[in-house]
Amino acid sequence: MNGAHALLATLSKNGVDTCFANPGTSEMHFVAGLDDARDMRAILCLFEGVATGAADGYGRVRGTPAATLLHLGPGLANGWANLHNARRAHTPLVNIVGDHATYHSQFDAPLQSDILSVASALEGWQRRTTRPDNVARDTADAIAAALAPPGSVATLVLPADASWGEIESPPDEWPEATRSTTSEPDEAAVRHAVDALRTRKCALFLGGASLASSQLSLAHRVAHATRSRLICETFPSILDRGAGVPGPERLIYLSEFAISQLRDVEVLILIGAHEPVGFFAYPDVSSRLVAEGCEVIALAPPGVDTAMALATLVQELKVPPAPQTFGEAPAAPSGALSTASFAAAIGATMPEDLIVADESNTGGVHLFAATQSSPPHRWMTLTGGSIGFGLPVALGAAVGSGQRVLALEADGSMMYTPQALWTMAREQLDVTVVALSNRSYAILNLERQRVGAVSEGATSQRMLDLDDPALNLCDVATGLGVPSQRVTTADELVRALETSYATPGPRFIEAMLPKGLS
Amino acid sequence: MNGAHALLATLSKNGVDTCFANPGTSEMHFVAGLDDARDMRAILCLFEGVATGAADGYGRVRGTPAATLLHLGPGLANGWANLHNARRAHTPLVNIVGDHATYHSQFDAPLQSDILSVASALEGWQRRTTRPDNVARDTADAIAAALAPPGSVATLVLPADASWGEIESPPDEWPEATRSTTSEPDEAAVRHAVDALRTRKCALFLGGASLASSQLSLAHRVAHATRSRLICETFPSILDRGAGVPGPERLIYLSEFAISQLRDVEVLILIGAHEPVGFFAYPDVSSRLVAEGCEVIALAPPGVDTAMALATLVQELKVPPAPQTFGEAPAAPSGALSTASFAAAIGATMPEDLIVADESNTGGVHLFAATQSSPPHRWMTLTGGSIGFGLPVALGAAVGSGQRVLALEADGSMMYTPQALWTMAREQLDVTVVALSNRSYAILNLERQRVGAVSEGATSQRMLDLDDPALNLCDVATGLGVPSQRVTTADELVRALETSYATPGPRFIEAMLPKGLS
Repeated sequence: MNGAHALLATLSKNGVDTCFANPGTSEMHFVAGLDDARDMRAILCLFEGVATGAADGYGRVRGTPAATLLHLGPGLANGWANLHNARRAHTPLVNIVGDHATYHSQFDAPLQSDILSVASALEGWQRRTTRPDNVARDTADAIAAALAPPGSVATLVLPADASWGEIESPPDEWPEATRSTTSEPDEAAVRHAVDALRTRKCALFLGGASLASSQLSLAHRVAHATRSRLICETFPSILDRGAGVPGPERLIYLSEFAISQLRDVEVLILIGAHEPVGFFAYPDVSSRLVAEGCEVIALAPPGVDTAMALATLVQELKVPPAPQTFGEAPAAPSGALSTASFAAAIGATMPEDLIVADESNTGGVHLFAATQSSPPHRWMTLTGGSIGFGLPVALGAAVGSGQRVLALEADGSMMYTPQALWTMAREQLDVTVVALSNRSYAILNLERQRVGAVSEGATSQRMLDLDDPALNLCDVATGLGVPSQRVTTADELVRALETSYATPGPRFIEAMLPKGLS
Repeated sequence: MNGAHALLATLSKNGVDTCFANPGTSEMHFVAGLDDARDMRAILCLFEGVATGAADGYGRVRGTPAATLLHLGPGLANGWANLHNARRAHTPLVNIVGDHATYHSQFDAPLQSDILSVASALEGWQRRTTRPDNVARDTADAIAAALAPPGSVATLVLPADASWGEIESPPDEWPEATRSTTSEPDEAAVRHAVDALRTRKCALFLGGASLASSQLSLAHRVAHATRSRLICETFPSILDRGAGVPGPERLIYLSEFAISQLRDVEVLILIGAHEPVGFFAYPDVSSRLVAEGCEVIALAPPGVDTAMALATLVQELKVPPAPQTFGEAPAAPSGALSTASFAAAIGATMPEDLIVADESNTGGVHLFAATQSSPPHRWMTLTGGSIGFGLPVALGAAVGSGQRVLALEADGSMMYTPQALWTMAREQLDVTVVALSNRSYAILNLERQRVGAVSEGATSQRMLDLDDPALNLCDVATGLGVPSQRVTTADELVRALETSYATPGPRFIEAMLPKGLS
């Protein structure tokens, strides 16, 4: 019985039964231990950013952590960008990073590095375990930390000798992770919010757990009864949507427009979210988005029980059930591919219970409107702004849910983590990928104007264009083992989507937009 | 005149005229500034690990830094693994990381993170500049730090408002980076080494700058006259090799064999290198590789003038010129592809002045022997053990040298940073890629036995196999814009290499080995 066995057993004991792995030499005892750990599903990824993004997607759809298995400092760094997104999504995630044997660190071998400094920037729990006998306790602590509301990335650094070393006194039972609960909303904040909802122009600003269907219904009732607005975070972790689910406004990404959107709000009541701020700073645009003088009430910031906060509002305000208006899903589009017909094709074909991983960026501008009345579904977004999240998160969500996942990608962003496609093929996951090809970092064409970095030169323009050479995304997907096809009309896209939804396993669809279109 | 202009002007003033970039919103003023910075070559990369690896390759072949341009914490993290390799190679490199505007950081926007903690683990110079007027001075300091012997990764964090803000008092001239020189060898160490070389069984352990042809010749003379051995680091940054260049033994990667290789060495004299240690720790194998009682003399550790150290030994020992034996390049092989015929094909076809980026891993075991008598060339290796270095470093070396580069890849490792192929096509670089396909993390099959993690289970074996599904590397390369072909015999490989060397631009060759062969 070695440390690796204790790690695997403690993970299983606490319901962590999936590990997205890219192991190396220092992780070989963990890998060997898999043969005895029958209830652990280990999924191989070709790049660490895929493993961490997959664990994020898994955690988002299940609310419980998957583990990763990464190889020393470089492995953690390769996975860091998607861990940053997971951190911003408050995803529970247990990150296991192999390291040199404790006694080897002093020799500054080539792969030696300061792993904890890299991990510290993720701002979650972190610990370097040192003895085989400590591994089980440290693993349970990592799981407890990951699950503590609102959820976070916990990083356990596992030296090779803690992994391969024999445990001197195996415990009778593997330790259980302490479960902490969400806090109750502050009473004063509740009174304050109730009062404001009765008397002033309010908006409920929703994020986190409040975006589950049941809580959206409560929020909708409160908003309807008090003539308040419902606004959700620009980039929710996972949002219930579709026919029958109240759809809040989405806070607009562009600061100028978000400021305008919030102009008339006198009181912003935070439920599962922090006060919204500009995604970037722009010269002469405020970083804060609420109007001057707008009061912000932190009724249930992340970590506080949003369901209780909403139920309390319903009770205190004695709000009746609210009527709901139902729209219709769009008709299947025909003709040329544009961002509008792309969105209509998605909205027209969605099967029930689809999970969407949306990294379509500028190409996805019409998606929310076009899918609001499609069958009920869940929508995941780029919480931390670190691109390359879409394919890995789709992969993890498919593993975690067993349901069909639709990954909406853009050519620029999908090229950060294309390796995820291989694992989709390997695990035969039901993932439909639509990659919008506009041969451009289209969002940067917009952003450079917004920051005032306007220049007409060919040199700067060339830094935003992806058409020299043109990427053939289908070839990339085929090379990675996923059947692929290119579509050039809305009709073809509709047919390709329908075929994929009806066919088990992954499929890759490259949708050709006019160059630079957004 | 804004901070971005000052940055570009100071880079140019100090000879930093190449930037490998993956910019985002916070870097748009730098991008706009390129239109006025005519002597700066900006090269777009689809992933930050490509940009940093390319800057490493550029710095290795030129000895002067290229810049990178990265997007906040996630951009730095995505580039970190190849910066780790650059750090271990002592490559001079100026890392520019855009950040939120200084006043925006307090709002904890989605992309906010502790960039300096991630940078600190690279153990080089780092600074967050804060005002447009400081940018030029900070840039010069970064260049000075990068160039200070033996070379390192300097990281300048550039907030958006330092970039877009106007400079109040532009200087008459942009600042010059202070140039520091290598230290002279310690006199006592010289006396000690001379004495040891006269009387005991010595080995010169060579790394860093001492692996240039001129210094290898001096080392060879010393070794010949004193019957000492010449041994070079297992993973040199860049090594001159080929016909007419004395070829030191290479320290064996596997600790057990390296210990055996060094068993009879009574004195190890370090020139451009630290004392060698095991790449990993293994149960019951020493981390130190020299024999018990072996004396280690730090004659010229990294940062000390290796040329002067060697010249001093030649002078003190009054060694005469040494004869050299010349071998012959191998004949072009025929028949089945194996690691031996692969190596022979490389050795038989090498044109003069080729630069090799070697990430062939287990498949490359015969390469050094097969190329020792090929035309003079330079060889770059995986200094930091962080895989995914080969294609990016090849790209940067091609930019930095203007010469033909041969990238030797393995299927597992090339899938970390395949995006480099696109930039090779975009810049029409003379890079020949040979990717060995054995559908396996073959090295891990070996390593798990060495660490004693032996298990016969199908679950653990599946974590080391890459054949389900099989990767089609040619499709991946074609999708990224590089002409590609698959070869299945040694004859085909020879012809493909010859064709590529005679044809401008990049070419991708997938060499099919039997599964798992290493």
